[in-house]
Amino acid sequence: MANEKKAVEQITSMEEDFAKWYTDIVKKADLIDYSSVKGCMIIRPYGYAIWENIQRILDGRFKELGHENVYMPMFIPESLLNKEKEHVEGFAPEVAWITMGGSERLTERLCVRPTSETLFCEHYKNIIRSYRDLPKLYNQWCSVVRWEKTTRPFLRSREFLWQEGHTMHATAKEAEEETIRMLNVYATFFEQDLGMPVLRGQKTDKEKFAGAKATYTVEALMHDGKALQGGTSHNFGDGFARAFDIQYLDKDNTLKYCHQTSWGVSTRIIGGIIMTHGDDRGLVLPSAVAPIQVVIVPVQQHKEGVLEAAEALKDRLSSVCRVKIDDSDNSPGWKFAEYEMKGVPVRIEIGPRDIESRQCVLVRRDNHEKQFVSLDGLEERVLAELDALTKALYEKASANRAKRTFTATDLATLQEIAAKESGYIRAMWCGELDCELELKEKADVSSRCIPFDDQEPISDTCVCCGKKAKHLVYWGKAY
Amino acid sequence: MANEKKAVEQITSMEEDFAKWYTDIVKKADLIDYSSVKGCMIIRPYGYAIWENIQRILDGRFKELGHENVYMPMFIPESLLNKEKEHVEGFAPEVAWITMGGSERLTERLCVRPTSETLFCEHYKNIIRSYRDLPKLYNQWCSVVRWEKTTRPFLRSREFLWQEGHTMHATAKEAEEETIRMLNVYATFFEQDLGMPVLRGQKTDKEKFAGAKATYTVEALMHDGKALQGGTSHNFGDGFARAFDIQYLDKDNTLKYCHQTSWGVSTRIIGGIIMTHGDDRGLVLPSAVAPIQVVIVPVQQHKEGVLEAAEALKDRLSSVCRVKIDDSDNSPGWKFAEYEMKGVPVRIEIGPRDIESRQCVLVRRDNHEKQFVSLDGLEERVLAELDALTKALYEKASANRAKRTFTATDLATLQEIAAKESGYIRAMWCGELDCELELKEKADVSSRCIPFDDQEPISDTCVCCGKKAKHLVYWGKAY
Repeated sequence: MANEKKAVEQITSMEEDFAKWYTDIVKKADLIDYSSVKGCMIIRPYGYAIWENIQRILDGRFKELGHENVYMPMFIPESLLNKEKEHVEGFAPEVAWITMGGSERLTERLCVRPTSETLFCEHYKNIIRSYRDLPKLYNQWCSVVRWEKTTRPFLRSREFLWQEGHTMHATAKEAEEETIRMLNVYATFFEQDLGMPVLRGQKTDKEKFAGAKATYTVEALMHDGKALQGGTSHNFGDGFARAFDIQYLDKDNTLKYCHQTSWGVSTRIIGGIIMTHGDDRGLVLPSAVAPIQVVIVPVQQHKEGVLEAAEALKDRLSSVCRVKIDDSDNSPGWKFAEYEMKGVPVRIEIGPRDIESRQCVLVRRDNHEKQFVSLDGLEERVLAELDALTKALYEKASANRAKRTFTATDLATLQEIAAKESGYIRAMWCGELDCELELKEKADVSSRCIPFDDQEPISDTCVCCGKKAKHLVYWGKAY
Repeated sequence: MANEKKAVEQITSMEEDFAKWYTDIVKKADLIDYSSVKGCMIIRPYGYAIWENIQRILDGRFKELGHENVYMPMFIPESLLNKEKEHVEGFAPEVAWITMGGSERLTERLCVRPTSETLFCEHYKNIIRSYRDLPKLYNQWCSVVRWEKTTRPFLRSREFLWQEGHTMHATAKEAEEETIRMLNVYATFFEQDLGMPVLRGQKTDKEKFAGAKATYTVEALMHDGKALQGGTSHNFGDGFARAFDIQYLDKDNTLKYCHQTSWGVSTRIIGGIIMTHGDDRGLVLPSAVAPIQVVIVPVQQHKEGVLEAAEALKDRLSSVCRVKIDDSDNSPGWKFAEYEMKGVPVRIEIGPRDIESRQCVLVRRDNHEKQFVSLDGLEERVLAELDALTKALYEKASANRAKRTFTATDLATLQEIAAKESGYIRAMWCGELDCELELKEKADVSSRCIPFDDQEPISDTCVCCGKKAKHLVYWGKAY
């Protein structure tokens, strides 16, 4: 598309209409396209390259910790899905069913996997015999399908790409450790690589995964104050192992049930990046996942030596980062707007006068400041700016979150905050489902999580019923 | 599985029962497992790691040539599949149909993609306007579904993993160049990276892809003399572009139809590797795709210094190749058999006496020769052996192919060869479908391809009907 003279059209401003601003960006930054397949999206090269970077980083970290990739069938026979009661109740209403193969009606219908616990369990049952076979640390990169009614690109679509880790352990303790370990892998990725501060915490029973004993989450807060569940990590205990009869012979020569976890993140992350960092000029990408980290724009490129100097810069920088030069016929102003729309972290401009004074102009996508930078040691400077950009994004998002985090100790206050503000509301909870439902009804908020790092009680009583409080909970509206 | 004390059981010998030998290997080398999902396979960590290596190598080559990855929906609405007549006739009988989403019957049924030409065309129609937008060089890594009646792991399964390139060009010439260019990328990969000699050639109309103008193929010959279509590259001309109305405004200000290609290889490659290189001890993997390239087996590992020396070797070698040390309690003999079964290209043994004389024992998987090798410069030596192994596999497979390539100038001879031998039969053909069908009926052979590199006529007349011959064709039985 680089050669295409397309006008960089205005996008809706965030303040005017955040939802419209979001869909403008996913289209105008060439991340996705729609098709005649309702509720599904086409992920275009620029969008897919972001996902490839996410995959590469996470896959490397999973493997460092000993995880191995596998591939399971995309279909689940109805009888297999039915094996774990809570699980099937959670997922059956939202799966797509295959009923015909060619021109023949199937004797048993198959669903397209909405998640693969049942398939992994059937396989683990086959391959686990002894304590020597444990732990099994498997992961799968694939697409899954959930038949959603209302869909939005990246955030909620009928098909999405994700990874699903599925592990089996000898003891409950090891399974819990794995669940938390992988949650922390996600938290580190969000915070350090994506510049997105996250709350780590536990989901309430109402919000946990169908069939899990405990679900942990990393929750991010978007620019507009709505929460986004960024990744989840589930401890299944031995529930599935009992349903699927997955036992191992332990050292003491007795049969024991395995303990199981699963954990996943999806292309949803891309929606989270957009809504956390984007601005009215378009996308803002954290350096680690930006398909193009540096764009070089030659200024007065028809003048002698300019293109050569730009090419020389590209050659130097390509050894340390993903760099692109745009020497198309479009004006520098057009190019500036285009790569701002695409969220490229660093722009370098170089023209005749810069060449003379052995410098270039460097502009970071987040703060738009023009810096005159010496060509000597440019590689180190660019790496430092890429790093500083992600840190600055993190600080900005943290400030937004701080500004949008409220506290309520009684229902009236909670309702008032929920009506006026958008963000997290910290409030005590008794642990009862009824109170969760009542807060949903009366204030339109759901429990986001019981945070790990903010547990000091702020009052003794439940914000809803006034009975003895059990947990400090973050409440909010979510994508 | 490294710690698991499993006996390396005998596999069926190739000569006794090649089909049984094959299924023994895919199971006992831990490549796949079966599940309750009929006709689909579970690709286990060791099998999937081979696929990841295949992906990494090919993906890098595609990108070097300017291709970009995208992701299309996995569903195709029936009306979209129906848009190109020949295409739908070819694929409709073998697709899986979604008819229900959750508890609702869909108003239009969706098939799970058997291939994605129609989805790409719909998207290209949306994004191609001008000659400046061309070429579009897209590729997708995904899984596809074809509702096969009889299935075999890797070779033919209802779901398989593949890549499908889909490109759009301004002219017929450029499309033809791309089709051949990508065929050559495949040929190089098979021959140089996998050690598998391939025939490059054109498919007859009967065997070409549904909707293509021309299909090119790389055909490999398995150890048992049956052919395997390794990869195909299709030139669609402007057939789909006309069906989908994909036009661009050319420099001369007139609207023109685009010219299109597609090309793909799949997890079938893994079946091809097994059946080309495997032997009665198990899998033999070409170095480029082996998950473990070198296994270090300590001998008398309880003796002082042995494990340390083995670890030191591993540290040195890990900078140049994928190396693993097996210091489990299993005997060296057990380990030798285990890694032979898994096809690890190079085994290194090190024991007390080796340490004393600053050497180790190196055994290559293909020839089983024991070599005493100095520890000095071991990295270079190992790299040389890994390279030599792939070359030796190529030579061995080439010799098998030469031995199994026959020539016939009359039908009786062709029938006699087909009855007695297994391999390619070179014979002239008039170009008529009737003769292809007759050869299938009378000699149970199908046309593999009209080869690029063997075109000198061997007679003037068709081997079947005796009329004037048009092409030299390779005939054979295929997987």
